[in-house]
Amino acid sequence: MSIFTITAKDPHSRARAGVVRTPHGDVPTPVFMPVGTRGTVKSLSPRELREHGATIILGNTYHLYLQPGHELIARHGGLHGFASWDGPMLTDSGGFQVFSLIYGGISNEIKGRRPQRANPMQGMVKVTEDAVIFKSYLDGSRHIFTPERSIQIQHGLGADIIVCFDELPPFHATYKYTRQSMDRTHRWAARCLTAHREREAEQLPNPGQSLFGIVHGGVFPDLRQASAEHLATLGFDGFCIGGSLGGDKPQMYDVVDMTVPHMPDGMARHLLGVGDIDDLLEGVARGIDMFDCVSPTRLGRHATALVRRDGEQGSRRWKLNVLNASMRDDRNPLQPGCTCETCRTYSRAYIHHLFKANEILGIRLVSLHNIAFLLNLMREVRAAIIAGRFGEMYADWLGKPLR
Amino acid sequence: MSIFTITAKDPHSRARAGVVRTPHGDVPTPVFMPVGTRGTVKSLSPRELREHGATIILGNTYHLYLQPGHELIARHGGLHGFASWDGPMLTDSGGFQVFSLIYGGISNEIKGRRPQRANPMQGMVKVTEDAVIFKSYLDGSRHIFTPERSIQIQHGLGADIIVCFDELPPFHATYKYTRQSMDRTHRWAARCLTAHREREAEQLPNPGQSLFGIVHGGVFPDLRQASAEHLATLGFDGFCIGGSLGGDKPQMYDVVDMTVPHMPDGMARHLLGVGDIDDLLEGVARGIDMFDCVSPTRLGRHATALVRRDGEQGSRRWKLNVLNASMRDDRNPLQPGCTCETCRTYSRAYIHHLFKANEILGIRLVSLHNIAFLLNLMREVRAAIIAGRFGEMYADWLGKPLR
Repeated sequence: MSIFTITAKDPHSRARAGVVRTPHGDVPTPVFMPVGTRGTVKSLSPRELREHGATIILGNTYHLYLQPGHELIARHGGLHGFASWDGPMLTDSGGFQVFSLIYGGISNEIKGRRPQRANPMQGMVKVTEDAVIFKSYLDGSRHIFTPERSIQIQHGLGADIIVCFDELPPFHATYKYTRQSMDRTHRWAARCLTAHREREAEQLPNPGQSLFGIVHGGVFPDLRQASAEHLATLGFDGFCIGGSLGGDKPQMYDVVDMTVPHMPDGMARHLLGVGDIDDLLEGVARGIDMFDCVSPTRLGRHATALVRRDGEQGSRRWKLNVLNASMRDDRNPLQPGCTCETCRTYSRAYIHHLFKANEILGIRLVSLHNIAFLLNLMREVRAAIIAGRFGEMYADWLGKPLR
Repeated sequence: MSIFTITAKDPHSRARAGVVRTPHGDVPTPVFMPVGTRGTVKSLSPRELREHGATIILGNTYHLYLQPGHELIARHGGLHGFASWDGPMLTDSGGFQVFSLIYGGISNEIKGRRPQRANPMQGMVKVTEDAVIFKSYLDGSRHIFTPERSIQIQHGLGADIIVCFDELPPFHATYKYTRQSMDRTHRWAARCLTAHREREAEQLPNPGQSLFGIVHGGVFPDLRQASAEHLATLGFDGFCIGGSLGGDKPQMYDVVDMTVPHMPDGMARHLLGVGDIDDLLEGVARGIDMFDCVSPTRLGRHATALVRRDGEQGSRRWKLNVLNASMRDDRNPLQPGCTCETCRTYSRAYIHHLFKANEILGIRLVSLHNIAFLLNLMREVRAAIIAGRFGEMYADWLGKPLR
């Protein structure tokens, strides 16, 4: 059953505005969700997130399962109670991290940013029809995830939206391997759904969880179509687009374009792990409703602020290095006109100083701004769609017409 | 001229409640001031400090002079404008840090916590009648502080209360050396006062700064008396007690007892660098109005929360190690009954998890609680003095009668 209602559609693209209903409140879409990997959106408090307009956050099943463990979190009222976030929440299935964190670089591998290496998974992870056996990134201990186990863990965490357990073949996987992996992920999807429906008897925090399927198929149009169409028959509450999204941004947009038309129109669509400014606008234009990414807080820890600087080219257009010597005496806020607490209160010079002095407040201030910047962007996107001027906004931000 | 008004006196001790008037507002005393060494109270925002009742904070002249420099800070509206703290502020003179940071351990040496070493200052600092020549802890570059230079820097920083430049002889200094050093510090005090009065012509941020003298004399009663009485004749706006405070807490209390009776009754008294829970109560009982210490944020970074646990002995009475395994599943707040945002919102188990996962939010939450704990304690102390029941409160907290 869909938990999603469409409010408005853009006549010139696949963009739409809507609302995702959850037990902890409604989530207006399109939406960007900050990522709280280990039960905290790094360096920020739930109150700061709420005050800056976050409507839903994401937690990582893999990390929370390893530490402190889902049983403990369940005893503390689920991740909502444990981390004091009373709004909507989504957990991923642990699939991505099982495959990515173990090798350090596999996440780049999956996203196609690295050349293929000979069997990078050797010894650290093993995939069978039934399960994935992996070693903890914390202590090397051995663990087993099955689709059922992932759902059980996510039931313990108690997020409003939980996600199917999937395998992630690398970007350079062959058509044959990608197809085999997709078929298995489809079988796992059915097992996840069954496990999810059997939950009723248990004492769980935060009942009323929804389950999203994950569309796979790599960069192959017929597999993406097959995956989208197959999953649509199984009874999920919404869908993610996962697996390899290609080797660069144009290929990622192609993957979205070859997938979305085959997904049910009335269901929410979440593009996993994507959150660059241009990617958000391109994703919305292609019919994506939900996004998540660690980038705003990761950039924040590295003194990089999200900005819009129309005169600049490439990544300088969207990123400002606060450690740059030119910031030393700069009284401007990170982004002139930004309404976040950082920009309302502090100068670039002060934040530059904080990073020079290795002060934690610097990380906080830039992370908060970066999150707020994306939340504000998405609020503006939503308003533009509803007002029928998304194409205008797209062109204004990206400097090119909406296809 | 005194900027201090006494509101109430405890009939059974030297404790008094009062108000320190500054250009950025009134400071009710007794008061604890959080320390923002490099222009930030570590990990916390000015807003959090205000919301939790901080009325005045302290900045460190030595650190801010080296990075980013007082000229830059002056251009940004002084430390108030630069760091976005619009309340009262005090800067130290840089004297303590010049002597303490260079050797790593000299601060313990000064406080008598380490055995004497052979000439620990060798090569890093040189004291003459005119100046202190020292090397930067950041890059080894050579710098000179004179009394006039310290005042000039503090004018640039623009704190409401600034402090005389002084030399800090080690705890184990002889009577003869302590006396010579004190006499020189007295000559420097007069130079500071002159430099401060010559400021009028300059364009400075935050005019109306007050200047406090620092009473020296080590652990020697006649020197402490001589220093207090001499400084009282020079026209300061208030006084600090500095220099060696002895080798342990009882000796520190003795030093306060041998000093306070010789200080002007109607002037504010600041005991530099002291902030343990028992020291605050003992200091107030001995007539101290103002305290500062880095301990709440330093303890916060090391997962140690300030608490009151009447059943425990020694430091366990006042400190809780959040990393202790017994915290793992503990749903209590750090301090039951505490009104700070941390204790109103988060459990020990969650904070334990944050530290286990090396998450910055853990440092924030414990630092905020620790600051709030001391601010609440001092508010309670002040109310008790005004209500005539300070002796009762002292006995309740320390488990022994007020002398």
